[in-house]
Amino acid sequence: MKQLNSSDIVSALKLISPFIHQTPVLTSRTLNERIERNVYFKCENFQKTGAFKARGACNAVFSLPSDVRSVVTHSSGNHGAALSWAASLREIRTFVICPVDASPAKRANIMRYGGEIVDCGSSLKDRETALSEFLARSDATFIPPYDDPKIIAGQGTCTSEFLAQVPELKEVWVPIGGGGLISGAVLASKGRATVVGAEPELARDAHDSLEAGKRLPALPPRTCADGLRTQLGVLNFSILHDANTRVVLVTEDELLNAQKMIWEHLKIVIERSSAVPVAALIKSESSCHDGVGVILSGGNVEI
Amino acid sequence: MKQLNSSDIVSALKLISPFIHQTPVLTSRTLNERIERNVYFKCENFQKTGAFKARGACNAVFSLPSDVRSVVTHSSGNHGAALSWAASLREIRTFVICPVDASPAKRANIMRYGGEIVDCGSSLKDRETALSEFLARSDATFIPPYDDPKIIAGQGTCTSEFLAQVPELKEVWVPIGGGGLISGAVLASKGRATVVGAEPELARDAHDSLEAGKRLPALPPRTCADGLRTQLGVLNFSILHDANTRVVLVTEDELLNAQKMIWEHLKIVIERSSAVPVAALIKSESSCHDGVGVILSGGNVEI
Repeated sequence: MKQLNSSDIVSALKLISPFIHQTPVLTSRTLNERIERNVYFKCENFQKTGAFKARGACNAVFSLPSDVRSVVTHSSGNHGAALSWAASLREIRTFVICPVDASPAKRANIMRYGGEIVDCGSSLKDRETALSEFLARSDATFIPPYDDPKIIAGQGTCTSEFLAQVPELKEVWVPIGGGGLISGAVLASKGRATVVGAEPELARDAHDSLEAGKRLPALPPRTCADGLRTQLGVLNFSILHDANTRVVLVTEDELLNAQKMIWEHLKIVIERSSAVPVAALIKSESSCHDGVGVILSGGNVEI
Repeated sequence: MKQLNSSDIVSALKLISPFIHQTPVLTSRTLNERIERNVYFKCENFQKTGAFKARGACNAVFSLPSDVRSVVTHSSGNHGAALSWAASLREIRTFVICPVDASPAKRANIMRYGGEIVDCGSSLKDRETALSEFLARSDATFIPPYDDPKIIAGQGTCTSEFLAQVPELKEVWVPIGGGGLISGAVLASKGRATVVGAEPELARDAHDSLEAGKRLPALPPRTCADGLRTQLGVLNFSILHDANTRVVLVTEDELLNAQKMIWEHLKIVIERSSAVPVAALIKSESSCHDGVGVILSGGNVEI
């Protein structure tokens, strides 16, 4: 397989731009004072299906051969909804292997876009077993949630769009779950801006894997940032490792406080995963006082 | 005094546009399905100081003679913050007579913009007494929260901007507290679109006043939509009465459900007052299925 690079992101953006939103970039004087830097927020909570996942799913679906009639994935929620939405644009049927304890808002979101839920347990192992069983008895095409070139290129369009909207951007702060968003960001910003990852202490497998120089297993799914409980993917690890990507860890309290701060001052609804890079930025020293960007990855929350 | 008309709004917009945001208009496929109409949301929660009140305050402050050194107002919160902000742009000192039970977020907002709070009781009478006492011992200029031509013209810029952003708009749904926003909307949309007011059942003085053909006293401040507890102003009543404005009433449950719906599906934080026209629209029959607009008046909430 040829190496993924920024031209794949350019192609992805061309393919998906008729279907996705160019999401707005917001700023706040009050938040700049609190964070002590001038910060730009890329609002993927306003993206189709409420999260950046629409980008990768759309790129994967529109890259499929025309005879594909159904797709399947495993997802704690946002990728499942995004795939259901993207596949419906091509009248392709979608099955989503989904943990029974995924948030009700995320499960509802999958069904709203026409996805059919196949229940599984909450561990990664449970998901993988359910997926294998499903694939054995179906001709559906598997669309992985993050460990896939088309998905990564699709998610990378978020950062390339962000850099076009804010040319002075020097740092982009991104949450890490499976690593689709951040590996796309690394490819999209190469030579333009530095990408910094952010992870909950309770789901620090990406941080520890990059430090160890090899992929380590995911931790038990204990963080309240439910979108970040997954293990860093193989291709994702390789891209982050090659770029020597820094990862900042935050506590549960720090991420919950950051979420509250965004709701109160930016006046937008973001999910806990999205608050992780905000919390990381608040606690970090930085030489960069202007041109700092944060990707707010999604807004699917049950109020 | 000459009659207020749409040219006052044009002048106001010219005066204040260097200082305020042109707020975005959002739409949502999911909300269109839920409300069974195509609805445009004018997001004044993203306005400076978190509410449309910045418009009127800015127009009033920049219309003051150059020798004014301090201003005073009474406010449950948003007008106080807006006036503090606007006056600070001209280095004018601001005093805000504020009920002790106003929401902590709104009191904090006043102080953040440099306003000095003067505590009073929670009834309108308490506010008026405290204001008279303050004016007797100070040379501050009183800037009323809504019953004032400069304030009304300033608030009207929200609707004129909305009509310019969405030329197909045929109806504009607006919450009524003191009536600053809606009387500005009526003037701004004359001959272009119909303005419909929305009020909580528990604060239905505008509805009842328009039905009775005379201004009735405010009800006890029991609605949870704290921004709408005030009595409809004199000039505001006159503008709404002349335009034969319709007012739709909503229950507390209806407004709380509408707030939840906006948070979950539009992914933005709005205060309870802003949810009132959304709730009114949901429960109303309408011949207008496209080109319906709602002004989301503010987003100052303590999470």
